Amino acid sequence: MITIVFENNKIPLYAQLYSAIKREIESGSLKTGEKLPSKRKLALHLKISQITVETAYNQLASEGYIISKARSGFYVQPFDNTLIVPNTNTYTPKNKTISNDYKINFLTNAVDTDCFPFSVWSKLNREILLENKNLLKAINPKGDLGLRESISKYLHQYRGVNIHPEQIIIGAGTEYLLGLIIQIFGTDNIFGVENPCYHKITKILDINKVHTNYIPLDNDGIIIDKLKSTNTNIMYVTPSHHFPLGIVTTIPRRQQIISWANEQDNRFILEDDYDSEFRYSGKPIPALQGLDRNNKVIYFNTFAKTLAPSLRIAYMALPENLLKIYEEKFLFYSCTVPSFEQQILKKFIDRGHFEQHLNKIRNIYKTRRDIVINTFSENNMFDRFSISGEKAGQHLLIQAKNISENVLINAAKNANIKVYGLSEYYSQNINYNTENGTIIIGYSGFKNDELKTAVNKLCKVLKNL
Amino acid sequence: MITIVFENNKIPLYAQLYSAIKREIESGSLKTGEKLPSKRKLALHLKISQITVETAYNQLASEGYIISKARSGFYVQPFDNTLIVPNTNTYTPKNKTISNDYKINFLTNAVDTDCFPFSVWSKLNREILLENKNLLKAINPKGDLGLRESISKYLHQYRGVNIHPEQIIIGAGTEYLLGLIIQIFGTDNIFGVENPCYHKITKILDINKVHTNYIPLDNDGIIIDKLKSTNTNIMYVTPSHHFPLGIVTTIPRRQQIISWANEQDNRFILEDDYDSEFRYSGKPIPALQGLDRNNKVIYFNTFAKTLAPSLRIAYMALPENLLKIYEEKFLFYSCTVPSFEQQILKKFIDRGHFEQHLNKIRNIYKTRRDIVINTFSENNMFDRFSISGEKAGQHLLIQAKNISENVLINAAKNANIKVYGLSEYYSQNINYNTENGTIIIGYSGFKNDELKTAVNKLCKVLKNL
Repeated sequence: MITIVFENNKIPLYAQLYSAIKREIESGSLKTGEKLPSKRKLALHLKISQITVETAYNQLASEGYIISKARSGFYVQPFDNTLIVPNTNTYTPKNKTISNDYKINFLTNAVDTDCFPFSVWSKLNREILLENKNLLKAINPKGDLGLRESISKYLHQYRGVNIHPEQIIIGAGTEYLLGLIIQIFGTDNIFGVENPCYHKITKILDINKVHTNYIPLDNDGIIIDKLKSTNTNIMYVTPSHHFPLGIVTTIPRRQQIISWANEQDNRFILEDDYDSEFRYSGKPIPALQGLDRNNKVIYFNTFAKTLAPSLRIAYMALPENLLKIYEEKFLFYSCTVPSFEQQILKKFIDRGHFEQHLNKIRNIYKTRRDIVINTFSENNMFDRFSISGEKAGQHLLIQAKNISENVLINAAKNANIKVYGLSEYYSQNINYNTENGTIIIGYSGFKNDELKTAVNKLCKVLKNL
Repeated sequence: MITIVFENNKIPLYAQLYSAIKREIESGSLKTGEKLPSKRKLALHLKISQITVETAYNQLASEGYIISKARSGFYVQPFDNTLIVPNTNTYTPKNKTISNDYKINFLTNAVDTDCFPFSVWSKLNREILLENKNLLKAINPKGDLGLRESISKYLHQYRGVNIHPEQIIIGAGTEYLLGLIIQIFGTDNIFGVENPCYHKITKILDINKVHTNYIPLDNDGIIIDKLKSTNTNIMYVTPSHHFPLGIVTTIPRRQQIISWANEQDNRFILEDDYDSEFRYSGKPIPALQGLDRNNKVIYFNTFAKTLAPSLRIAYMALPENLLKIYEEKFLFYSCTVPSFEQQILKKFIDRGHFEQHLNKIRNIYKTRRDIVINTFSENNMFDRFSISGEKAGQHLLIQAKNISENVLINAAKNANIKVYGLSEYYSQNINYNTENGTIIIGYSGFKNDELKTAVNKLCKVLKNL
């Protein structure tokens, strides 16, 4: 009789029994043709239910280890030992030294997940599961049509652009969609990025061996003469809110960027509008895409910042000429976002929850921004430090007079505070002057009172420099 | 007083009011400094609640269109018309002729979504939403550690391989992960694929401009001499169940493939194990990865076939040397799968539901396979047609004697039946003999009685040839 000791873990009893019998067959303890005990007997012997034994036997039978003979029982099938491979993988991960264990970390990409509209999301979740008709079918490669329609309406109403749902492609993050754009253009094109620029953009271009030029900015946006002095033909820009400088590209500069693109057929603009929802004063500025008359702008946005990074839903809108290429050659790629999330998000937008949520978190983050500025003011910091980039986004810049970036960062570090040096975001081939050092502090990941305490601590450190 | 006609659609009243007032400001009908009616008055006038008016006013204020003055009311802010861009996007999608409107379609990649374990999935879904602690945080770039641990255990128990959870990378589909592999290797390497091969694999390699060799198979797997006669250094194989031929690579051939890889440092094997769960007779064959002693095999699998294509969860396991490269250079890529799905799937595996589900659908698909074979037998087809590739997967091959593939496909087409020609899966530079034509029919997307009717119809058509 088979005897096993059931372990008190989360593996179901039938699975433990299945594994035990399988091991016996594989090791040769149970031989070909041998009859297994009846379900009733084995159940009695092991003090488990007959159903448990039956489930284990059925699993073994379905995998060919045993065979069921009518009105007789289960018999061990011939077993080829050469199929069993002793397992020799000895990989063990190295212990890594954790470097981000600061007490206070002014992360620029934190999202306050307590703001997430859990009850509404759960309700829509249940609704979708009850409807369940189209939940499992393969998704349109561009993404759920319903969601694309909702995004199209949202963009029309809030971002001042007309984008047909068929132009929208939903993907698991801007990173994925940028990878798709690189494939659509091929690596013969020359990309341009703003300098400074969000790390990941340049990393993705580098790792895909795309030739990249770095274009500096002035207060109005990228400097057109500098752009023109390069062989760039695809320019990545963040006109709504530059990361990390916080510059909003002015209307005349936007028109110059569009004119640059119009000069040659192979020129295009990648507009990343990811932070446009977090503007704290003044009117929202329509997307640059709205100025495009010649199929020059590819528009990107994401729900990572507005909802939750773990949702992984971003989208891009292709102009007609590129859409044609995509539809001819790239439709074989499956959509990377589960239909479940897409259908919930559609309802979330359609019923006005997204807008309400945006208003709510915009106010929350505005309050936090004000806490940073007011705390700086209370500490009388503004004679030696100035703040910029505070009109939008979830971080701001603090520039010191005659203190270098390294000194600022190390002083904070010694007090167990992590701040980010502006020079980190510049491409290495540009000599960035850090005499008047600038640090970046993100405020979105703190509760209000935590933030006040953290900024007070930072002020104390900086004042002593 | 503002007057608007509310439309009886799903847009909330406050949003309609918001849009109406915004239009008035943008068009200049409401002028800078003008005072808006009080909430009470406007609510009375429009016969809506004061809350609705308040929500609309707050939205306009948060976007800077109006400003609230304490104890006075809301006033229109200065508005810069140059920001408003007339919208000229006139893209309208072309009407496409739909080509796949067959009455009967023997798709090879259909999943019977009625088999999906909805009640269990919903239950786990609710559990996860109630726990909600880690649901929203940015995910580990490799994927949820809990899910990777569950996959590691599953692979050990069912696929005979030891893979450490840290070696596993979860991604939104095998397509995405293959893209990542191409980035890790760079495009200087020479890939090999089986010939014939699943369409998408070659498309992804082509579109990424990867040089690819096509390696033919005999009944034991890819032909090693043919592989050696090329400059291939990264070979993509499906040893558990070749698509579409259904060949299971034999143990000696597996050892030869491993030996080939061991001959040179830059040689690797991509093992796609996607169909290994659907084996209807005989023992499951452990993955080729289990034979690897020298960090040569990258193992891929997906839940698209075993659960639902719309879930978008696949994974790969990297050998130690490649894992090092990934960890040095690729960790900046965010995980492409929402944490929500990952956490549900983890519980689904841990509690034995995945195994139960596999047993259930394996039996269902086995029954359907038997229906195809029995219906062919009942129609006395076996004098002129033979069946192969029936031991696993969700499709089988029907080879005719002295009837070409085109004749088979067109005869079916005339009867409104879609079958797939084997030659479609061969690379074009190989001259595939279609004298004794072979068609592929998938059976997983039909209900049992539908399938019987469909196969009977197909048999009638083929008999008349």
